[in-house]
Parts: sequence; C-alpha cells; structure tokens
Amino acid sequence: MNTSAVEKLIRNIKKTGTPIVVGLDPMLSYVPAFIQKKAFEEFGETLEGAGEAIWEFNKGIIDSTADLIPAVKPQIAMYEQFGLPGLAAYKKTVDYCKSKGLVVIGDIKRGDIGSTSAAYAAGHLGTVQVGTHMFAPFDEDFATVNPYLGSDGVVPFLDVCREHGKGIFVLVKTSNPSSGEFQDRVTDGRPVYEWVGEKVAEWGSTLMGDSYSSVGAVVGATYPEMGKILRDIMPNAFILVPGYGAQGGKGKDLVHFFNKDGLGAVVNSSRGIIAAWKQEKYGACGETGYAEASRLAVQDMAADIGEALGNL
Amino acid sequence: MNTSAVEKLIRNIKKTGTPIVVGLDPMLSYVPAFIQKKAFEEFGETLEGAGEAIWEFNKGIIDSTADLIPAVKPQIAMYEQFGLPGLAAYKKTVDYCKSKGLVVIGDIKRGDIGSTSAAYAAGHLGTVQVGTHMFAPFDEDFATVNPYLGSDGVVPFLDVCREHGKGIFVLVKTSNPSSGEFQDRVTDGRPVYEWVGEKVAEWGSTLMGDSYSSVGAVVGATYPEMGKILRDIMPNAFILVPGYGAQGGKGKDLVHFFNKDGLGAVVNSSRGIIAAWKQEKYGACGETGYAEASRLAVQDMAADIGEALGNL
Repeated sequence: MNTSAVEKLIRNIKKTGTPIVVGLDPMLSYVPAFIQKKAFEEFGETLEGAGEAIWEFNKGIIDSTADLIPAVKPQIAMYEQFGLPGLAAYKKTVDYCKSKGLVVIGDIKRGDIGSTSAAYAAGHLGTVQVGTHMFAPFDEDFATVNPYLGSDGVVPFLDVCREHGKGIFVLVKTSNPSSGEFQDRVTDGRPVYEWVGEKVAEWGSTLMGDSYSSVGAVVGATYPEMGKILRDIMPNAFILVPGYGAQGGKGKDLVHFFNKDGLGAVVNSSRGIIAAWKQEKYGACGETGYAEASRLAVQDMAADIGEALGNL
Repeated sequence: MNTSAVEKLIRNIKKTGTPIVVGLDPMLSYVPAFIQKKAFEEFGETLEGAGEAIWEFNKGIIDSTADLIPAVKPQIAMYEQFGLPGLAAYKKTVDYCKSKGLVVIGDIKRGDIGSTSAAYAAGHLGTVQVGTHMFAPFDEDFATVNPYLGSDGVVPFLDVCREHGKGIFVLVKTSNPSSGEFQDRVTDGRPVYEWVGEKVAEWGSTLMGDSYSSVGAVVGATYPEMGKILRDIMPNAFILVPGYGAQGGKGKDLVHFFNKDGLGAVVNSSRGIIAAWKQEKYGACGETGYAEASRLAVQDMAADIGEALGNL
C-alpha cells in the first residue's frame, strides 16, 4: 500500500514547519537574461530554447528552496504554451522536485467526462498500459481538477487516486475577480461554490487518510469569508489557497482556511517567490542571485503565515 | 486579415454538405492489431510506440474521410495520457488535418485565470515569443474552453482569437449524465447553463463573422430541450454538439440545435466513426478495412442528420 498523497503532504508540512507551496509558473520575463542567453546559445531562440531556459530557472529555485517548503505547484499552462519542448520542461521539473522529496501538485485544471477524465487521470496520476508494459507518464502527486462537468468528470480521478496513492484539489472558489460570475450564483439558498464544497466533502470521504482526505479544494485567499464557510463544509479537506502575495491575499486573511490543529490548508505563492529578484525588497541579490532572492521570499512568507497562524 | 475561424467552418460545411465533426479520440483498444504490431516493432511497447500507433490509426481515418467532413475534433486527453510522445502524436494529427483543409477543433477544455489562460490561448490558438522569434506551438483553429472561472478565464482566449482568426467553443451544457449537478442549478429563475449561454452570446458579439460568431458553445445532443432554449439565447453561436451515436443522441434530437438557415451547429461523433470497424454493421470491412468502415459510418451519419435537417 502506498502512503496516501495527503499523508505525504502532512509529513512534509510537519518537517518544514510551514504550509507553503511554491508555484513554479515561469514566464520568460521572470527568467534572468543570463539564463536565457545560455539556453538560446545552446538551442537557439526556439521552443527548445524556451523550455531549457525555464527548466534551468526552475532548477535554481528548487535547489534554493527545497529544504524550506513541503510542496510545489507547477502550472502546466506556462509550459504547454511552449508546445512539446515546454511540456518536456514540465516533466523534468516534476521529476526533479520529486527527487528532492517535494510533493508535486500539478496545476492542470483538467476536467472532462467518463473515459476522457479517466485518460487525464491515468496520464497525470496513474499509469497507462502499452502492450504488456505499464508507464506513469507525468506522475504528479496531486492534480487540480475542474468540477463543472459534475461527478462523471471527478470520479475517474478518485479511482486512480485510490489505486496509486494520489490526490486531487477540486476548484471550488477561485481567486480571480470574476470567479463569482458562475461560482457565486445562489441556488436553493446557497451559492454554487458551496454545493461544490459539499461534493468535495462527499468525494473526499472515500479517500481518507488519518484525519484528512486526499481530495482537497482550491479556495482563493482573496475570499477569506467564503473560506471560513467552506472550511466548515469540508472539515477533512486540505484547502489549496492561491492568491497570496501578488494577487492581494495576506497572512491574516488565511487563518480561517486552517483547522485548529494548524493543518488543513496549503498556501501558494508563485510570482512573489519565483520573481522575487525583480522586487526592490530583494534587489540586493541581483539577477544572478535570483534563487537566493526566492529563498528569502519563502522565509518572509513563512514568517508572515507563521505569525498569523500563531493566533489560531 | 485572416479569414475568421467561423467563416472557414461555414465554408467547409457548405462544401461537404454536412455538419459532421469526427472526434479523433483514439483509445489503443480502437487501433487494429496490425497497426499496433507495426508501431511496437519499430518503437517497442513504449509511450513512443503508443503515440506512433494512434498517429498511424488517425492518418488512415483522415485519409478516408477528409473529403466528406468539414472538421475534426481531436480530444487531447487521449494523447496526453501517453505523455510527451502522445502529445507529439496530437500535434502531428492537428498539422495533418490542417494540411487536408479540415477545420481542427482542439478539444482541450482548458480554463484558468488571467495570464494562465492567456498562456493556454497563446500555445493553442496564438503565438509565443522566444527572444525575437515567434512560434505557433499547437495552432488549432478552435479550442474548447471551460467557463467555471468566469470572464477572467475566457477573455484572454477572445483576445487571441481576434488577433489570429481563431475561435472557441465554451462548455455550456455537457452531454454526460451528471452534467446537471452544477450546470442545472437554478439561480435567479434560470439554470446556470443558461447564464453561461448569455455570457457566450455577449463574448461572441465581439467576434462576429458575417452572421455567426467565432465564439461557439458546447451543448450535448443528449439534452435536446435545453438545446432549443440555448439556440434562442445564443442565436449567432455555432453549437458543437457531442453525444451523437455512442452516447445516445440521434439525428432527430438535433433539429433544435440548428437555425432555419441549416447552419449554427456541428455534430460530433467519435467512437461511432473511428471504431466503426468493431461494429457488426461494418464488420465486412474487417480489421484492415477500419478506415473504410469509418468512411461508411460518416456516410450513414450524414444521411441520418440530412434527413432530420430536411424537416427544418
């Protein structure tokens, strides 16, 4: 029996003492010129060159922060935009993070129906069979999943998670300004996101670890009051909280996402960590010290969150 | 100025006289043994072997049906499950279909927020810049988009469509049994899918061709009554209708998805066409005649739909 994904996540949180997830969402504009130059010298100004540049950039940040953090969340869109070479960089990043003991949350936001969701689940969290051989193509620990298509789209992921000790985070209430257009529509006295939260609790009951489920939820830091209600609806779900830092969320907004045991949530920061070298605050690191800047930013974020959680 | 995606689609529909989309969603179990054997002899029982097998399978079907159909819809999940080699087969399939003059609808169901949706849009429908060079990594004509995150997730696609003459189909009411869990929830007197339909009409007004928009909608053949209402809400949207054939939809269920001009919808069939050789009805083609079986299945589907539309 595999250790379940949520137990692996909790173990890492306890080891590092902080619930931080670093969002590995590299834009080429975040990648220092010296890294781009080297990659382009080797591969040209090509998709391969872009893939190499973001991979080298990621590697520096991972090496510099891996001992401080429990998990990373690579956003596959930032790799997929560079086609196959970009996706090759995604795969290298996932593998490298796992080799460092980090929990990898693939931010893929996939969701489809029946056999199609089963294919996404197999490719990202499970295995596929070719002839008599089995392969685990992407092999993240968790994936984010879009619930708009209903249970048909989610259940195939649950089946794969159960078999392979993996987990998912279901989009419940996203951090963006227009997330309310459909998610906040009130139906039978409650907004849609609460109904999705109820489903997350139900799906999660079939994938329980000791006290938490490997079925989590995405709830934006930008909506702390909604987070409080969703915390109650899904007491056993880990909440993945995006929107900290660059999107406006702060440590004090996060307390309601956690349970009394200090667990139950992980907080993602992407730009605030990986592009820290571009902030005035970390300017002394310089371009070549971008990885050190990301380490300092992680430490500052851990202090901010630690202070807020001290008030739990 | 590029021809808009919807005008290209309409031109192909008029040329072929039928609104059929062939869903290129290959499962290995659909691929005849002789094709798998050849691919595995060359590449082994590997992900590369799987990618080669589904690409060769697709090529046979495309060669056999391209003159009869306006468009294809490769489902990226079926390729992504085989990792990078699977995605390479996806890309080859997209390129080959375009070289045959087919409109390619990438069934990717992506959707995220802000810069992340912009990355998906650039990678699939637009271009990315690397140094001083521009690349169009996947370059489908249309992509399917998940609306759960609201306008923030969709608007970046609209911007790319406008610049590159591309289009999207937004998931409104999907064909699966549990699609109602969230999509049918009634809010302010109307189900969520109608509110999404209203947004599709609004988004679409910014991307009009002569009489139709390059912003379409996905509405399942399995819900004809809802299709009728959505047809009225989104008069200028092309409706991409999945669920014909294997999922239970029939020609007569489709009439409400079309406008009086005989346009306004395209009907997808995947398994019913690409795995036709496994049906008793087309059994005479045999395994090696799988491509001919798919041609016969397209002709039968065109007749079924043509008869239904004759009653418009």
